[in-house]
Amino acid sequence: MGETHELSQEEWQTLRTQLAGLHLVRILSENAMAKSAVLLLSKSPLSIPSGSPEEFISQIECAEAGCLSLLIVEKTPFSPEDFGRIITLPSMETTTPIAVNDIYARLLSHMSSACKLSYIHPATTTHIRKHIPAPFVKVTETPAMYAERVLPYINSLPASRTLWITKIIAREAEANDILGYFDATSPTASDGFILVPDSKWDRVTLANLYLLVLAANSDLKSLRDLRGHHIPFLNRVKNEVEALVKRMYGIEATSLRLYCHYQPSYYHFHIHVVNAQTEPTGGMAAGQAHLLEDMINNLELDPEYYSKKTITYYLAGQHDLFSVLK
Amino acid sequence: MGETHELSQEEWQTLRTQLAGLHLVRILSENAMAKSAVLLLSKSPLSIPSGSPEEFISQIECAEAGCLSLLIVEKTPFSPEDFGRIITLPSMETTTPIAVNDIYARLLSHMSSACKLSYIHPATTTHIRKHIPAPFVKVTETPAMYAERVLPYINSLPASRTLWITKIIAREAEANDILGYFDATSPTASDGFILVPDSKWDRVTLANLYLLVLAANSDLKSLRDLRGHHIPFLNRVKNEVEALVKRMYGIEATSLRLYCHYQPSYYHFHIHVVNAQTEPTGGMAAGQAHLLEDMINNLELDPEYYSKKTITYYLAGQHDLFSVLK
Repeated sequence: MGETHELSQEEWQTLRTQLAGLHLVRILSENAMAKSAVLLLSKSPLSIPSGSPEEFISQIECAEAGCLSLLIVEKTPFSPEDFGRIITLPSMETTTPIAVNDIYARLLSHMSSACKLSYIHPATTTHIRKHIPAPFVKVTETPAMYAERVLPYINSLPASRTLWITKIIAREAEANDILGYFDATSPTASDGFILVPDSKWDRVTLANLYLLVLAANSDLKSLRDLRGHHIPFLNRVKNEVEALVKRMYGIEATSLRLYCHYQPSYYHFHIHVVNAQTEPTGGMAAGQAHLLEDMINNLELDPEYYSKKTITYYLAGQHDLFSVLK
Repeated sequence: MGETHELSQEEWQTLRTQLAGLHLVRILSENAMAKSAVLLLSKSPLSIPSGSPEEFISQIECAEAGCLSLLIVEKTPFSPEDFGRIITLPSMETTTPIAVNDIYARLLSHMSSACKLSYIHPATTTHIRKHIPAPFVKVTETPAMYAERVLPYINSLPASRTLWITKIIAREAEANDILGYFDATSPTASDGFILVPDSKWDRVTLANLYLLVLAANSDLKSLRDLRGHHIPFLNRVKNEVEALVKRMYGIEATSLRLYCHYQPSYYHFHIHVVNAQTEPTGGMAAGQAHLLEDMINNLELDPEYYSKKTITYYLAGQHDLFSVLK
């Protein structure tokens, strides 16, 4: 993928010409909460195949690969200028009442909204598949399933997937971003870690603070590997991160949410650090997120807790793990 | 509160007159994800007090109580008619390019959006306080804290709060809504429960399926009370609910999320049953939601697990429990 750049007037005219006269093939997904949608478009009218997403994609692939586009559209949040307009809405002619109940009145109105558009052209079947919502499927993973199926899967993953972490820890990669290096407390201890800003954080908005703890010990793959002897490491992470966040950002320990994912997206043990005021999303759900405090206390109650526990989680239907779990 | 009704033309004209010429006092909250905001309005211009929400409310209370209104505004999801308009946006004159990168182009455009408005007048300080976002605060509840502070708090709550459940279970209340009565399996067993649709569910949209399991045994207040001897009850809930949902709604067991809250909003043990495809929100977050499968397995590993566990959770800052926890 090339560099992101601004368009020249000429490039923009060319793109605008391409964009004219697009046809809607199918609404791939809609998010009523976020007020967003993903549309599949084609240059020429296309008879719309019905059927399941997979059948649909295979038909599309044969018939029309190469002339398809995706358009992702999302309404924007209200801007400061919008608020002046909003207070005039209730009395406008185009506003209609829906219902009234005592001191409450519900009205429907209209206003101009900015929309963010992302246009992908040409859209391959990989792009299209990525934008079809995959159903979540519950997995109840016993320790035996972990040993016989999940662990071999983890071991089969190429080391290149976590090379970026290995390089950061070895201080070989660009390290301007590191918020804190916490070396092991002794040559035999494996309680070192580093703290970095998560790539999803803009590094400015404290309400969305999002940091990442990366364990220095690369033998520690996930929650499943935690044992009683990791308690000092986990307590150290908790205490040092809480102190650093308080010092750097003024956020209290009681306003932080520290958790790991199981299954994680990569198998080098890491802990997410977010502002507890952030509206929880899928990644914080029970069945994916495990609070640091719970890890510590579960190991205190039983040092072998995570080797005995049946762990229940939800995976998107197309997750690679299903190839070994089914 | 009275009945909800539609407005007559005359009532609407009166309301519209009231609504004209409102002044913005303060933006109480904004939700960038949901594209919504809560505005505090006044009939006449008001010098805007600064300071913390609490200081601000106390000033407002003295100065202007009675002439304030709240306006809650939220952009609506895209409608079917919107999609035809959206595909013409990229080529419109008012659309501007933001950036381009290989096959990706990001654009900004504008379109008319429907907005839902809720108008509350007069808005009391209670209404206003309810719409100021309360910060979430982490609580790490040891078994001792539970015994000494939380349990007395639970026991002090009036029985009237859970009377509606008691009546449903005793079959005294209107019971058209009950999806299933599951009586205790023997006179000495306390494994009975009933299944009802949650009031937040429209009872139609399967993607948002939301049911509620109410334990027949009213001695069971919350997760904290669960012991090894409750395993048969919990397994029965799991098996019966999964079978009923499959039969009535065609949804597979692997597509369900069953969990309880700790702290719950009322202390009569109940389990939430939702479609796993529902986008997780705050109520499903780790630190509030506990999966039924985890309850069962934790009790299998240690029948006294929930009497020993330090439970970490997040409470809104104004929660009643803080009066006993602080």
